[in-house]
Amino acid sequence: MTAWPLPRAVRLRDVGPRDGLQAEQPLPVDDRVRLIRALADAGLRHIEVGSFVSPKAVPAMAGTAGVVERLGPLPGVTRTALVPNARGARDALAAGIDELTVTLSASEEYGRRNTRMTVAEALGQVEAICELAAGTPVDAVVSCAFGSPYEGDIAPAAVRAVGEEARRRGATAVTYADTTGMATPARIARLVEETGAEIGLHLHETRATGLVCAFAGLTLGVARFDTSVGGLGGSPFAAGAAGNVGTEDLVHLLDDLGVDTGVDLQALLGASALLAELLGRELPSAIARRGPRLAAAGVAAAGPG
Amino acid sequence: MTAWPLPRAVRLRDVGPRDGLQAEQPLPVDDRVRLIRALADAGLRHIEVGSFVSPKAVPAMAGTAGVVERLGPLPGVTRTALVPNARGARDALAAGIDELTVTLSASEEYGRRNTRMTVAEALGQVEAICELAAGTPVDAVVSCAFGSPYEGDIAPAAVRAVGEEARRRGATAVTYADTTGMATPARIARLVEETGAEIGLHLHETRATGLVCAFAGLTLGVARFDTSVGGLGGSPFAAGAAGNVGTEDLVHLLDDLGVDTGVDLQALLGASALLAELLGRELPSAIARRGPRLAAAGVAAAGPG
Repeated sequence: MTAWPLPRAVRLRDVGPRDGLQAEQPLPVDDRVRLIRALADAGLRHIEVGSFVSPKAVPAMAGTAGVVERLGPLPGVTRTALVPNARGARDALAAGIDELTVTLSASEEYGRRNTRMTVAEALGQVEAICELAAGTPVDAVVSCAFGSPYEGDIAPAAVRAVGEEARRRGATAVTYADTTGMATPARIARLVEETGAEIGLHLHETRATGLVCAFAGLTLGVARFDTSVGGLGGSPFAAGAAGNVGTEDLVHLLDDLGVDTGVDLQALLGASALLAELLGRELPSAIARRGPRLAAAGVAAAGPG
Repeated sequence: MTAWPLPRAVRLRDVGPRDGLQAEQPLPVDDRVRLIRALADAGLRHIEVGSFVSPKAVPAMAGTAGVVERLGPLPGVTRTALVPNARGARDALAAGIDELTVTLSASEEYGRRNTRMTVAEALGQVEAICELAAGTPVDAVVSCAFGSPYEGDIAPAAVRAVGEEARRRGATAVTYADTTGMATPARIARLVEETGAEIGLHLHETRATGLVCAFAGLTLGVARFDTSVGGLGGSPFAAGAAGNVGTEDLVHLLDDLGVDTGVDLQALLGASALLAELLGRELPSAIARRGPRLAAAGVAAAGPG
């Protein structure tokens, strides 16, 4: 492909076992392990396997230590866990996790409502977690990076400042998250202009812009994306494509562009089918629902145009 | 915006009153006229108002002559109608339509099944319609331009050849249609490389790739898109985002990129709400369902990341 200057390969982190499952009815540890193994078998080299949070606050994430223990080390796979505080970080490190993700918000109001902390306090917590991590990589995920439901647009320079300060406090990587589906290609371009392309993007389909924003980032050199098997995530009460960008959907697009992901789409669709079975319902991912483009052979189409 | 070389303005043709409504329960002529007027009031300058087809084959399009009569001329608005054959063309021209669309297929098998014609026969029909049109513009819409559910991929040179032959037979414009949701950014790039950017794109969300393919086309200079108010279209039996690219969704994206469409998004959302009311159900467009990005203020978001 010569139409756009694309990276030759991208690194996908499947956040399905965490961001996808966190708002669902809790699945047994065994089923969570099966899902993660299926993702690893499909070629995912980076998987967010759960979070170390209060089981009262997020019942679906109870037992993440057991998930990590049952999994054991997965050769070639980075097993990530989200930790909200030092206590979670200690538990995650004790379980032998390979990477920590810690979220902080570009929006003061969103941060206050979701974590009861100011941005300054959240940065202090990132620092404490990074000290505990002592060599284990820590990815700081900056939420509301493309707009806040409270303040509206946040200047890209201010968003970058939060990410850079997290790095100064010890984070080894920064991912910018479109928490409420406010990203657009123009917003992606403005942030990448500020930060450079060495960032991760975590995009949601709330306004069906996740895939187009991922593509926009890709044309600007971004090569690290969070995706979720089946497109799960976001509010469980919102109908249709409201979750994270579906791993299937982005792999399908990248395969067709000749960009390497290491993922086998057919095997991934198997993992996705397993997840649909475990949850007892169809998943939002369009590729999971409709199949890859060339699998359409034999499907009748209605009407002209 | 400097990240991509975008056109300064694009021409959107809202095909909702035709492609959107054709598979629905028939709406009364008055309601179809109200919808078209609402679209024109929102700033759409190009609207496919219906088709002149057999009312037995497509009951929802019966009475299109009455729609055109009731509408009358709309200053500054091109009123288009789809015609499947010379008889339809005569009726449309007698009704005083401003532009004809005629479909032909890049896929022999798709064409045979949907129109019982070979591609050569369809081209003959385009010629006959263009002769009847005698100065009224004719847009040849080439279906299965990005893949066929029967033959799979069709070489871009072969797709272009169909469009170019339609031009030689008298078509004044060519639009390439992704009839069954097989387009991808890579396929858009390969076709535009063949044809140049002076084409129209008619994209579907069957695999949730409509918006990303529109954006891909835009970065390559394409400035003419078919969209459908509410994202209606495609199979009425498929859940979720299966129809045409939603006009709201593309206008929302283009507004944010600073690309002029002439459309007022708030007024368009009014037209979309009218359509939802007429059909008695929520429409697929994500922007119609979730609202523009900055309208999110006050909406609570769940969970980190």
